[in-house]
Amino acid sequence: MDIGTVNALSYEDFGNIFCNVVEKCPIIAAAVWSSRPFASFSALEAAFNEFMDALPESGKEGILRCHPDLAGRDLQSGTLTKESLEEQAGAGLDALESSEASSMARLNEHYKERFGFPFVICARMNDKKNILRQLSERCQHERTVERAHGIEEVKKICRLRLQGLVCHDAQNKL
Amino acid sequence: MDIGTVNALSYEDFGNIFCNVVEKCPIIAAAVWSSRPFASFSALEAAFNEFMDALPESGKEGILRCHPDLAGRDLQSGTLTKESLEEQAGAGLDALESSEASSMARLNEHYKERFGFPFVICARMNDKKNILRQLSERCQHERTVERAHGIEEVKKICRLRLQGLVCHDAQNKL
Repeated sequence: MDIGTVNALSYEDFGNIFCNVVEKCPIIAAAVWSSRPFASFSALEAAFNEFMDALPESGKEGILRCHPDLAGRDLQSGTLTKESLEEQAGAGLDALESSEASSMARLNEHYKERFGFPFVICARMNDKKNILRQLSERCQHERTVERAHGIEEVKKICRLRLQGLVCHDAQNKL
Repeated sequence: MDIGTVNALSYEDFGNIFCNVVEKCPIIAAAVWSSRPFASFSALEAAFNEFMDALPESGKEGILRCHPDLAGRDLQSGTLTKESLEEQAGAGLDALESSEASSMARLNEHYKERFGFPFVICARMNDKKNILRQLSERCQHERTVERAHGIEEVKKICRLRLQGLVCHDAQNKL
């Protein structure tokens, strides 16, 4: 879909198509529709980022809390969103060795206990070894640092999901 | 559940239990968890209201756009949330006469065309005749008036849904 097609969508169609570019936060796509028309893919992406940046800190934490654990209960029980399942599987999180799985579970719990929100990372830009290493490192951070870090990862996830739906600017110029 | 039990919930349990007190906006419950502990039912309700009031205008429109049409496609196709289905059925919207159904459909489309978000009203505080009358009247309003009116209705819906989950203050005092 090109940006002209995006700009012509009703709020209902826009909301349905972009409802999960920020995981389980359909309100964000529904709000971003108010900023149309978008001059380009980058302007569309920026509208999502600006909406998230303008939320109070509790709202940013709310976004993080709408994300599933990596290699967690939702993956095991088949209740991940389609997008999350593809991303976690792509990083190899659906095929962890037993020792990796137990490290991941232990560190996820530690992280959530410490910060009150889950560890969020753009799985498509990392493999399982890298994810485990970063999870371990990020457990040491301060809460405000991690909240901001998590939102930056949400933006990377959002960008890749948007790129799966809308031609980005380089493609538009072809 | 009393307020003490609410205050002891993990963000995951809190998010699961309160995910739909604001229709299809789980981020709001996930954000409100940051404000615990809540002194009372009223404090819990106030935390939801304050989060919504603090959103930019696009965010308020986003909340409204997450709501289904009354007596609309989701009711007919069985894709309403459990809460919305009970509320719409309670107001008699699942058993409209043919003339009422066509008026409702026509006015809903007119409202959405005019404002860019759907007509939202607390169905449990109204019957179908009253809903049709208000829908017709509210189509005449200014956009800013309707946005604010819609959010006040969302708050009434939120309050009743919370009351279905948590003992309110009068009950706590018994």
